[in-house]
Amino acid sequence: MSTFTPEPTDDVSIATIRTLAADVVGKANSGHPGAPMGMAPAAHVLFTRFFNANPKSSKWFNRDRFVLSNGCALQYILLHLHGYKLSMDDLKAFRQLDSLTPGHPEAHHTDGIEVTTGPLGQGFANGVGLAMAQEHLGAVYNRDNFELVNNYTYVFTGDGCLMEGVASEAASLAGHLQLGNLIVVYDDNHISIDGDTAVAFTENVEQRFLSYGWQVLHVDNGDSDLAAIHDAIVAARAEKNKPTIIRLRTTIGFGSKQQGTHGVHGSPLKADDIQSLKTMFGFPPDQTFHVPKETYDTYRAAALRGARLESEWASLLSAYGKQYPNEHAELTRRISGKLPEGWEKTLPVYKPSDPAQASRKLSEIVLTAITPAIPDLIGGSADLTGSNLTKVKGTVDFQPPSTKLGTYAGTYIRYGVREHGMGAIANGLSAYGGIVPFVATFLNFVSYAAGAVRLSALSKHQVIWVATHDSIGLGEDGPTHQPVETAVHLRAIPNLDFWRPADGNETSAAYLVALQSTETPSVLSLSRQNLPNLEGSTIERASRGGYVVHEVEGEDLTIVSSGSEVSIALEAASKLVAEGLKVRIVSLPCWSVFDKQDAQYRLSVLRSGAPILSLEALSTTGWQKYSHEQFGLPAWGASGPYQKVYEKFGITGTNIASVSKKVISFYKQKGGEVVSPLVKAL
Amino acid sequence: MSTFTPEPTDDVSIATIRTLAADVVGKANSGHPGAPMGMAPAAHVLFTRFFNANPKSSKWFNRDRFVLSNGCALQYILLHLHGYKLSMDDLKAFRQLDSLTPGHPEAHHTDGIEVTTGPLGQGFANGVGLAMAQEHLGAVYNRDNFELVNNYTYVFTGDGCLMEGVASEAASLAGHLQLGNLIVVYDDNHISIDGDTAVAFTENVEQRFLSYGWQVLHVDNGDSDLAAIHDAIVAARAEKNKPTIIRLRTTIGFGSKQQGTHGVHGSPLKADDIQSLKTMFGFPPDQTFHVPKETYDTYRAAALRGARLESEWASLLSAYGKQYPNEHAELTRRISGKLPEGWEKTLPVYKPSDPAQASRKLSEIVLTAITPAIPDLIGGSADLTGSNLTKVKGTVDFQPPSTKLGTYAGTYIRYGVREHGMGAIANGLSAYGGIVPFVATFLNFVSYAAGAVRLSALSKHQVIWVATHDSIGLGEDGPTHQPVETAVHLRAIPNLDFWRPADGNETSAAYLVALQSTETPSVLSLSRQNLPNLEGSTIERASRGGYVVHEVEGEDLTIVSSGSEVSIALEAASKLVAEGLKVRIVSLPCWSVFDKQDAQYRLSVLRSGAPILSLEALSTTGWQKYSHEQFGLPAWGASGPYQKVYEKFGITGTNIASVSKKVISFYKQKGGEVVSPLVKAL
Repeated sequence: MSTFTPEPTDDVSIATIRTLAADVVGKANSGHPGAPMGMAPAAHVLFTRFFNANPKSSKWFNRDRFVLSNGCALQYILLHLHGYKLSMDDLKAFRQLDSLTPGHPEAHHTDGIEVTTGPLGQGFANGVGLAMAQEHLGAVYNRDNFELVNNYTYVFTGDGCLMEGVASEAASLAGHLQLGNLIVVYDDNHISIDGDTAVAFTENVEQRFLSYGWQVLHVDNGDSDLAAIHDAIVAARAEKNKPTIIRLRTTIGFGSKQQGTHGVHGSPLKADDIQSLKTMFGFPPDQTFHVPKETYDTYRAAALRGARLESEWASLLSAYGKQYPNEHAELTRRISGKLPEGWEKTLPVYKPSDPAQASRKLSEIVLTAITPAIPDLIGGSADLTGSNLTKVKGTVDFQPPSTKLGTYAGTYIRYGVREHGMGAIANGLSAYGGIVPFVATFLNFVSYAAGAVRLSALSKHQVIWVATHDSIGLGEDGPTHQPVETAVHLRAIPNLDFWRPADGNETSAAYLVALQSTETPSVLSLSRQNLPNLEGSTIERASRGGYVVHEVEGEDLTIVSSGSEVSIALEAASKLVAEGLKVRIVSLPCWSVFDKQDAQYRLSVLRSGAPILSLEALSTTGWQKYSHEQFGLPAWGASGPYQKVYEKFGITGTNIASVSKKVISFYKQKGGEVVSPLVKAL
Repeated sequence: MSTFTPEPTDDVSIATIRTLAADVVGKANSGHPGAPMGMAPAAHVLFTRFFNANPKSSKWFNRDRFVLSNGCALQYILLHLHGYKLSMDDLKAFRQLDSLTPGHPEAHHTDGIEVTTGPLGQGFANGVGLAMAQEHLGAVYNRDNFELVNNYTYVFTGDGCLMEGVASEAASLAGHLQLGNLIVVYDDNHISIDGDTAVAFTENVEQRFLSYGWQVLHVDNGDSDLAAIHDAIVAARAEKNKPTIIRLRTTIGFGSKQQGTHGVHGSPLKADDIQSLKTMFGFPPDQTFHVPKETYDTYRAAALRGARLESEWASLLSAYGKQYPNEHAELTRRISGKLPEGWEKTLPVYKPSDPAQASRKLSEIVLTAITPAIPDLIGGSADLTGSNLTKVKGTVDFQPPSTKLGTYAGTYIRYGVREHGMGAIANGLSAYGGIVPFVATFLNFVSYAAGAVRLSALSKHQVIWVATHDSIGLGEDGPTHQPVETAVHLRAIPNLDFWRPADGNETSAAYLVALQSTETPSVLSLSRQNLPNLEGSTIERASRGGYVVHEVEGEDLTIVSSGSEVSIALEAASKLVAEGLKVRIVSLPCWSVFDKQDAQYRLSVLRSGAPILSLEALSTTGWQKYSHEQFGLPAWGASGPYQKVYEKFGITGTNIASVSKKVISFYKQKGGEVVSPLVKAL
């Protein structure tokens, strides 16, 4: 028995979405009309009957989250109808330069967009992260009669997303985690770019999601059976111990002459097709971007419902503040995105006489120190906890209580061997707010998650990667596990800070800047092997991204290095003193942060007057920006005890001293002033 | 009713594998003893009863393929017992520098290793590729009474691999493709590095694989029920229309005091534990690396069976040659890894007056020209066929005949939206032999497959990536789809050729070198937008990786560029002529190939005497190696018609002319000789 109440404006509203999709894509002469046209009924039912959000206050914390994983124009249309800051002119500027409506929805760019989608599979996994954030914060802050954090996360997804491994990983974890407030609507339209999904995607999706532990529902006629759509969402909301996927059979490009074919997937409809579509729906065929008043009215009513809910929630929060002042203070601080005052003081500080330790261990010491001060930190590893050293003693696992392995209030996430899913989930955790997620794996396997990492940076999600075993220094596992190209890959991503700290103070500095950079993800590249604490390092100096760790005047050479190789450079310098050669050492733990320092400072660190040699146990690619000469790995690493591997590649104090002499004599012979590589025209 | 015949030497052989695993990892003091000890019975049954291979002729074409996806010492032990070129001393050198037994098995490094494993999920997907190759070559070359290509592919996999998205993608496709000769043995030992799989991996794996269309079998006691293991493999081999997964419940580290815990996963057993293990199995407790004669005899018998099978196969091939001389000639040529004589002559050649075309279109023209000449080319796209332009007219889809969408003899693969799976499958296709695989997606989404791409390069798999839409030139899709960091990431991978051709001749050159480089993967970075054919380009010149496309003497500036920006550099140069400035243009389509040219040539291309400015519509990272000044994207791209996006970022003839003047005047003011960036000490 359906509980659906049809409204006279349903049909016209759905037709509005469909014709707008055709017009928006038609005017841009670029985009994907088919999916929005097919998903219009589900979108309409969801947004008018269920979705709780206030378009005039798009950051209201307990709003429902909506993710359009197969990111396209549909979301812009919905935002506009609802009354978000997106005008009809913005819709008309779809895919035009500097508009609010770029090709795919981007978080931090357009009001009301939660996460950046388009790259397939990402939005699905972001949705899992959003739902985990809700479960966690609800478990920590909700009290009897104070359900402050209980929103739903709705994800629309298509075949493309479900084929991607990143979505499979996230779906398996979501099932394990029993995320009851996660509701995925799967647009089963049988069409992808290559044509019918029969060519490559014939698995039984329902059975797959059952295997993950999801509730699986389906709607046979997603084109017009609004009651069935409605009832499926009702059932999804009612299931509190499982995520739900609703398989919705739709006709892509519904209403077009080419409906149901891949002709409507990624190209605008022809003009006559749009006209016939409008005629069919009773719309003026020659009018574009037509929105009947009833449609606006319907969506404004939904918006008013959201505004009312927010206001009720604000009252509830205020009452909560009286009864639970500490929790209230902490929750509102977290919602504001500010870390607790003074947390920086908990960062460990080291003296040169402190024992050598692996920077992964130094990272554990930082996490142990700051975790009590920052409840916002929620982290985990892709099944390398004991190697990444990311679990702080005493922390509880984030797990469904029924597993008896933890609780939803737990802060340590067991991601399983799912690096890409982990990265995309962390983006969702960050997007939710109130959480600073960290994730962990070997540096080499951050590459598995590259698709999610670049979206962290584009979308300004503060996600911290604890990336251990960051070079040949991991030793025996060998070249399959030893990164070579990974550092320069990550260094070339805009708005991503890649830190490779050399000792204890630099590790603390990396965490300091990473935690202060609320709109920038960071990757902390950490050693497996022990590193001595350096004479010249301080948190403050390292926080500038690069600094002189060993100063001499009238140097014959500067060696610029990072991470585990800085102490090797220092060893080379001390050997060369005996030969009357003066070598300065610069530590450059983070290129992007160093690049942001003023020119005078940068030129004082990498100064003219003597050649600069870079040293890193990785590919030398990119170091030419900061040095005249480069020493690094010629190609792949090797399997063996790490000291022997370093020897094999000549990355030892003795050999670097000999390389240094070669460099010094080359530039002496060459003659003329040696100018800093930072002195440039552009 | 079991068809298994136990042999008196079974138990001692299994015990040999288990104790050897403990000793090998113990001596190295590094590695994973638990999985080999747990999988010993399955390995023993498979290799003594079923596996067809000749250790003395490890490249015999119709051998069964074995992939140890959770790559560890087990494979080395099996190779040694079988009599491959791997001595007991090699086993003792496990994980030691320059040994044949590095931390994880590497193809092209150790005799008998088919594919490189260790990075989880890769081997599973490689196995799908190996099985596809067998299906394809069998369909093309087998004839009645001449089953020349009918081997099985066996994959051992663990929980870790099955959690990885890359394996999910490959598994879904394998089910769709009905790969009957693919048999996966899943070591269900309930343990991963973080402990019990209950913490993160509670999906129903059997149901998942049923949803993909696999045959699913299980063995409840994989520790000692050899008959059940045997019968499951028999049933797997009998099912010709589905891949099979056998879930084998095992005890990790069987026989150790810590068996069944994660204590035996990734660390050596303690000395007393190894002793008690040996005592339990009736082995001398103080003797290490002990192999009873019966064990060697058993494995030598299996090896002799393989040798006999190869000899029978050679006779069959010879008889085939008489009946099918053309097919025989082609098959043996393909097995030898040589392309057909003279195929290069089919490469298209262009004149400057030929119309401008997108390099993705130029790539299609090459594929259309060379496909008839090179039957070894088997390619496909991750659901972007119409955008990548990879399907040559008239080619047939590689599909199970029952789908009526193609045949196994078809050469076009519909990968679905599964980039990472596609990359790893292509590694398997290449590893099989007789096939040169190409794969396609947008350049930006090659990043999804980074884990597989680096293994192509490490393992010397000749895989060609057709990576279109390679910059902001894709326009409207915007920053989510526009690569920025991708080129430098791929350029920093050793043994990978990243080509960014500027016109028709350069596109032909890229294919020429990619197809001639039998041990190197290539990524062809191709434009969506049209590019004019250049005056100075030829296939021969571009094949050197870099060359002077526009020469002038006494230049004020050299601009070095690649791909779609070369013609913009030329436009800038022609504008500057009017102002009396002489600008040379160098095209550098492939850094790694250019780096291999002799120093004299390289210095003649990027010569001293005037500043060099690089120009590319991507991150400038890395260009400092070849230029004094760099112009590129400051950060992310933007969504809009591509010409407007180029304008926004100043990548136009007019603006580059103005940037050039700035560079020229800076170096004139600076004074002194401008030395080529290639002139270096190291």
